[in-house]
Amino acid sequence: MTVSREVELEGHIIDSGMMQSCFGIIMDLGGSFSVQEFDIGRHKDEESYARMLVEADDEAQLQSIVHELHQHGVNPSDPKDATLVPAPDDQVVPHGFYSTTNHPTYIRHNGEWIEVEDMEMDCAVVVEDGDPPRAYTKVLNAIDEGDMVVTDETGIKVQPPERPRDSGGAFGFMQGGVSSERPSESTIRKIANAIKETKKEGGKVMAVCGPALIHSGAREDLARLVREGYVDMLSAGNGFAVHDIERDIYGTSLGMDTESLDHPRHGHKHHIYAISEVIREGGIEEAVESGTIESGVMYECVDNDRPFVLAGSIRDDGPLPDTVTDAVEAQNAIREQAHEADMVLMLSTLLHSVAVGNCLPSTTRTVCVDINPATVTQLLDRGSAQAVGMVTDIGTFVPILAEQLLGEE
Amino acid sequence: MTVSREVELEGHIIDSGMMQSCFGIIMDLGGSFSVQEFDIGRHKDEESYARMLVEADDEAQLQSIVHELHQHGVNPSDPKDATLVPAPDDQVVPHGFYSTTNHPTYIRHNGEWIEVEDMEMDCAVVVEDGDPPRAYTKVLNAIDEGDMVVTDETGIKVQPPERPRDSGGAFGFMQGGVSSERPSESTIRKIANAIKETKKEGGKVMAVCGPALIHSGAREDLARLVREGYVDMLSAGNGFAVHDIERDIYGTSLGMDTESLDHPRHGHKHHIYAISEVIREGGIEEAVESGTIESGVMYECVDNDRPFVLAGSIRDDGPLPDTVTDAVEAQNAIREQAHEADMVLMLSTLLHSVAVGNCLPSTTRTVCVDINPATVTQLLDRGSAQAVGMVTDIGTFVPILAEQLLGEE
Amino acid sequence: MTVSREVELEGHIIDSGMMQSCFGIIMDLGGSFSVQEFDIGRHKDEESYARMLVEADDEAQLQSIVHELHQHGVNPSDPKDATLVPAPDDQVVPHGFYSTTNHPTYIRHNGEWIEVEDMEMDCAVVVEDGDPPRAYTKVLNAIDEGDMVVTDETGIKVQPPERPRDSGGAFGFMQGGVSSERPSESTIRKIANAIKETKKEGGKVMAVCGPALIHSGAREDLARLVREGYVDMLSAGNGFAVHDIERDIYGTSLGMDTESLDHPRHGHKHHIYAISEVIREGGIEEAVESGTIESGVMYECVDNDRPFVLAGSIRDDGPLPDTVTDAVEAQNAIREQAHEADMVLMLSTLLHSVAVGNCLPSTTRTVCVDINPATVTQLLDRGSAQAVGMVTDIGTFVPILAEQLLGEE
Amino acid sequence: MTVSREVELEGHIIDSGMMQSCFGIIMDLGGSFSVQEFDIGRHKDEESYARMLVEADDEAQLQSIVHELHQHGVNPSDPKDATLVPAPDDQVVPHGFYSTTNHPTYIRHNGEWIEVEDMEMDCAVVVEDGDPPRAYTKVLNAIDEGDMVVTDETGIKVQPPERPRDSGGAFGFMQGGVSSERPSESTIRKIANAIKETKKEGGKVMAVCGPALIHSGAREDLARLVREGYVDMLSAGNGFAVHDIERDIYGTSLGMDTESLDHPRHGHKHHIYAISEVIREGGIEEAVESGTIESGVMYECVDNDRPFVLAGSIRDDGPLPDTVTDAVEAQNAIREQAHEADMVLMLSTLLHSVAVGNCLPSTTRTVCVDINPATVTQLLDRGSAQAVGMVTDIGTFVPILAEQLLGEE
Repeated sequence: MTVSREVELEGHIIDSGMMQSCFGIIMDLGGSFSVQEFDIGRHKDEESYARMLVEADDEAQLQSIVHELHQHGVNPSDPKDATLVPAPDDQVVPHGFYSTTNHPTYIRHNGEWIEVEDMEMDCAVVVEDGDPPRAYTKVLNAIDEGDMVVTDETGIKVQPPERPRDSGGAFGFMQGGVSSERPSESTIRKIANAIKETKKEGGKVMAVCGPALIHSGAREDLARLVREGYVDMLSAGNGFAVHDIERDIYGTSLGMDTESLDHPRHGHKHHIYAISEVIREGGIEEAVESGTIESGVMYECVDNDRPFVLAGSIRDDGPLPDTVTDAVEAQNAIREQAHEADMVLMLSTLLHSVAVGNCLPSTTRTVCVDINPATVTQLLDRGSAQAVGMVTDIGTFVPILAEQLLGEE
Repeated sequence: MTVSREVELEGHIIDSGMMQSCFGIIMDLGGSFSVQEFDIGRHKDEESYARMLVEADDEAQLQSIVHELHQHGVNPSDPKDATLVPAPDDQVVPHGFYSTTNHPTYIRHNGEWIEVEDMEMDCAVVVEDGDPPRAYTKVLNAIDEGDMVVTDETGIKVQPPERPRDSGGAFGFMQGGVSSERPSESTIRKIANAIKETKKEGGKVMAVCGPALIHSGAREDLARLVREGYVDMLSAGNGFAVHDIERDIYGTSLGMDTESLDHPRHGHKHHIYAISEVIREGGIEEAVESGTIESGVMYECVDNDRPFVLAGSIRDDGPLPDTVTDAVEAQNAIREQAHEADMVLMLSTLLHSVAVGNCLPSTTRTVCVDINPATVTQLLDRGSAQAVGMVTDIGTFVPILAEQLLGEE
Repeated sequence: MTVSREVELEGHIIDSGMMQSCFGIIMDLGGSFSVQEFDIGRHKDEESYARMLVEADDEAQLQSIVHELHQHGVNPSDPKDATLVPAPDDQVVPHGFYSTTNHPTYIRHNGEWIEVEDMEMDCAVVVEDGDPPRAYTKVLNAIDEGDMVVTDETGIKVQPPERPRDSGGAFGFMQGGVSSERPSESTIRKIANAIKETKKEGGKVMAVCGPALIHSGAREDLARLVREGYVDMLSAGNGFAVHDIERDIYGTSLGMDTESLDHPRHGHKHHIYAISEVIREGGIEEAVESGTIESGVMYECVDNDRPFVLAGSIRDDGPLPDTVTDAVEAQNAIREQAHEADMVLMLSTLLHSVAVGNCLPSTTRTVCVDINPATVTQLLDRGSAQAVGMVTDIGTFVPILAEQLLGEE
Repeated sequence: MTVSREVELEGHIIDSGMMQSCFGIIMDLGGSFSVQEFDIGRHKDEESYARMLVEADDEAQLQSIVHELHQHGVNPSDPKDATLVPAPDDQVVPHGFYSTTNHPTYIRHNGEWIEVEDMEMDCAVVVEDGDPPRAYTKVLNAIDEGDMVVTDETGIKVQPPERPRDSGGAFGFMQGGVSSERPSESTIRKIANAIKETKKEGGKVMAVCGPALIHSGAREDLARLVREGYVDMLSAGNGFAVHDIERDIYGTSLGMDTESLDHPRHGHKHHIYAISEVIREGGIEEAVESGTIESGVMYECVDNDRPFVLAGSIRDDGPLPDTVTDAVEAQNAIREQAHEADMVLMLSTLLHSVAVGNCLPSTTRTVCVDINPATVTQLLDRGSAQAVGMVTDIGTFVPILAEQLLGEE
């Protein structure tokens, strides 16, 4: 005797690979199916619809199949309310809690679908009654005793975004693998266009930056982009700010003059001296106000009111007074920026890019630039349909991008 | 009119490249010199001695030359006491403070040379009167108002260690570049011998581990090394512990069964469930005691009283209750381990290896293993004479090392 | 007014992604379609069938769509004979000649489907009348005047192999990306099983080897695999053989003793001396017979009658008398081996692996091992359904593989 | 009883590390020494001189030490004539023949020092009597029976070039390791200056190019550099020319439009069609003349009489009629170009760069550009004092270089 459940697929279900994944899941888990209705969109912009009966040997197997299916956007055609269980203690979730993907998600509550706020992967979903009722994500360490946490898999609908197929949109240009053997200048031009479009739509651009950006001589051009409003907020580490400030005060980055390529004597101590100067002033904003810092990325952030988050790490020297040393606190600050961003530029930093990526819904436009293909691959490998990667030299990427957006200095 | 200062070089000064660096510095900075005495060691084990008169156009130039020289181990032959200036405020050092290298260093105080304790790079040196007087390093954020901080360059002696030249010692085997094209098994055998020798001398071995170690299937062999006493302490991140525990509870690492290579359904949620289970128990030790965790690296650490530090980072999920989320606090915990270690194994983690490396004196034996040559190069590039690097697969390195040390399981 | 053509899809058409590609092609090229029959296999081992009417605005567009479709295994349901045009000159193909994929391909000739022999990508297809008629691939430089060359796209059927989905087969174990963070020992065990299975089925194993294999100390274990019959033929370059022989005669590889890790003086000249010795003897076989070469991979090849091809390149020293210096001649020798092989091990060489890969049909089992993820990715990126890649250290891979197949020496 | 020999060192012997290497060699090989005269240059531009007595236990040991010493530029103070032995057969050198370094070398013959012509590493040296007598290198496969080949180590003087220390020269700017974290634009500016200086001195610039240059969109800018006379000759492979021509005829490179980033249908066949078109014409020059090829790097080479060598390899499709398929013949053609070049740009190709590097004396200015740090390191690792490496994106490097040399298009 078999058990069965009717499920529905909607959207570009063949084109996006959803149908393929879905058939694979059912068969891998030992179930079978019959397609009851199949209406295929014949043109680029038509959606498809399929209704299938999934069959399994027992209820456990069926639930397991249905669970996997809805992770991939297949939803039961007879939805029930989500199961809510109160958290037994602070930071403790109920057994079997639902752990989120980064795709747009809906919770069925009192017969209505509620969109989950602040989508982000690997979180719990808390439902709050009220008028209207709300559903939102919480990271594990933010759970309060008594939070009504979604458990099991019923009453949850996931909508993976679809990869744009035509090349019309700003982000339709790059599909396929990550490689350094792509046309570099043409790709940067497309990225510049996507930034312009984001700004035109009133969106916000977030830059996530590693210290290699400073060492490779791209600091002045990034500072221009901040000043001219193409970067609305900045997320980086202690080292990025230190080397940016070192360049301002001592003319070097990690001890090398990025113009003349000379290594002035004492240069390798400049970064620790720069930290000391900022600590003496009390912080970056104070050092800008006192005239100790007169140029650079951090200067432009302060001068133009672009918020920045400097997250600490165990390899930091100093750190600067502005650096948030607690990882959970820093994550929360990053999360706030990430949720506001409409486009994110990840510029030669793996650690900070992963941290930001963890907080991004899969619908935010993301550009990852690094000279190491492994870094780009890892960052793109997070299921975002809106991510493009580029394997290139950050020291030539930022100047060419700035030239595209602002013209020659 | 010129000014001059007499300086001395001692040790394997030609062999180690010290003489070459020293001549280069003087000439690069526009000075000149005459060699007044030069006694060259003629055999492998004889030391050399040179006394030179350094000449410069003015006092500023002379000081700059002398500063650079003693960074490379050249010391004035007429030493004066070090200059001590009290710190003006907490976390604020005097202008011109001396920022340390990671080499053994001595401070001249009341006409005597005091060895600086807890050597570590990029620190200030604080001198404390007493019987006997002491000199020790302090990181910038640990400076207290009134600390007597060494400033300028007088009265400081630096002794860079020399690269061992003969192949007799345990660490004499690897010179030259970092490459994957080295004899893998022979190199691992030499590393195993160095570990045995360290243990025989009563030394302590510290392992610094990244999560790739778990994903690549080396967990069981590392657990054996902990159990059998070849690893005395462990430094890692939240992710390492999470995946180690995930493997114990769910049989997977990052969702993949590392034996069968299957990806069980739900597998990608196992790590977040594993975190949740440990939070529920209150911590790793509690989870071991309650029987929730029954095997693995963290289990063996708890069961055999090997201290561990789990340092937090902004990309962590959870984190586990044991994870030290504050970067400064975590640095201090790592520092304590690093100062106790006689040999350090850096196993496929860049972030934690750099953090540990920052706290190590240049005399501690260090082995860096990573599949990415850039990581190994970066870690070796810190001036340690006692570091060997190996570009290999951590998933085969640890099993072969364990076989060398313990025999087949 | 629109034109249309009926096409058919057969096999695991959803599961393999064929249907998705096919819909994408039609819509990308501006066509539309209606599904006329759709019979979906409900279980793992059932095939599906679809018949569709493809519509386009004009004949040119329709042909273009149909061309792309059949590259992906979609064939017209009303097939016509292929168009044959005689080659106008030696090495010159007719305009619009059909350039092959590496998938199994059939040519319609006199109303019958003929399977194309010696499938290999980027070739022309020549049809030869006779009893029975034959169709086979020819590389451009082998075309003879008058050869009947398939042109345009009619009468050609391509069958891309399907990725095995269940984990039952020897090659079902590795799907998804290339990464060093995979369980190393378990993966090597699976590869050993696939080799055993290939040998049990009477198949031939071809090894493609780079010199890093010798430098990393894996020479003795590869020699054992040749001797014991797990490697039936060998493809390599001049450098591989030189360093293998250098190790035999002088105990070094690129001047380093791969056991003791010493660099004997003169060592960097050993490879050029080794070449000179073999030239003096007249070749490798002669040097084995005269006792000049007494061990190693080349020795075992000669001693056990395993054929080898040494292909020359512009970076070679010497070269050895056995090295085939003409690239076209060497390609032909490699091609012959590749067509005979049932399983190919590509061991740390990009150049030779690409050359072999170019000649392989997409149905040959292929294993690519390299420490550089970019190399593995490039080699896997050739559409073979039967290829697995492993990012690991060749110096530990070969010994562990040999231990799995032969036990400890 | 000991034996001894007097040797001399001249030049910047401490500064260049020569003295250090020399002491190391003597002690490593078990000898000892006394410094008999030591005159140290006190300023940047003064040379030093040392005369030492090297002592060893027996003649064999002494010869071994003296051999190593003169590889590093230390020469006996009582030179004897070189030993000449006739080659016993074609391609066969006498036992104990002297295998060259790539440094300037002199042979003592009839009491006179003769400079060896066509210096290149891993060759034999042949001495030809005459008026005046000549000494020149020969690769092993070019040896003729009866050639008088230099054997043993007497009568040979090697002069390793010294690394420039001041930053005055065009190539003084880059010392130290290879890293992507260098100031990109400033470094390209310095390279442009070195090219200008080479041209001003009447020198020739050779470009060694890989196909990634075309794929990454840098083709048009390289073509400008050829046209405007900044590239005098070109060395590449079949693939480079094929993709350059594919871009001209079909607008794509490896099937992608490098401007719009579109992948036109059929695109993956364009390269094989491009080859076919050139074969039909009979060669590149013929195809330029007939108007089949109208732009690009190969076009400019033909149109401006810049000689090019296309060397074949086993991975080539086609190949083009211009491609030299025999590796030895191709090496000879490359060798001829390399010996004429005063500056070499190695642009994103490992194989061809190694081949060219093998033929270069250590005094030719060399620039290596690749996005893979391992490639750059390998190319720089050949002992040339005149080589600088840059880890960057070839697709941004060439346009910025062209802008520096020629201004914006």
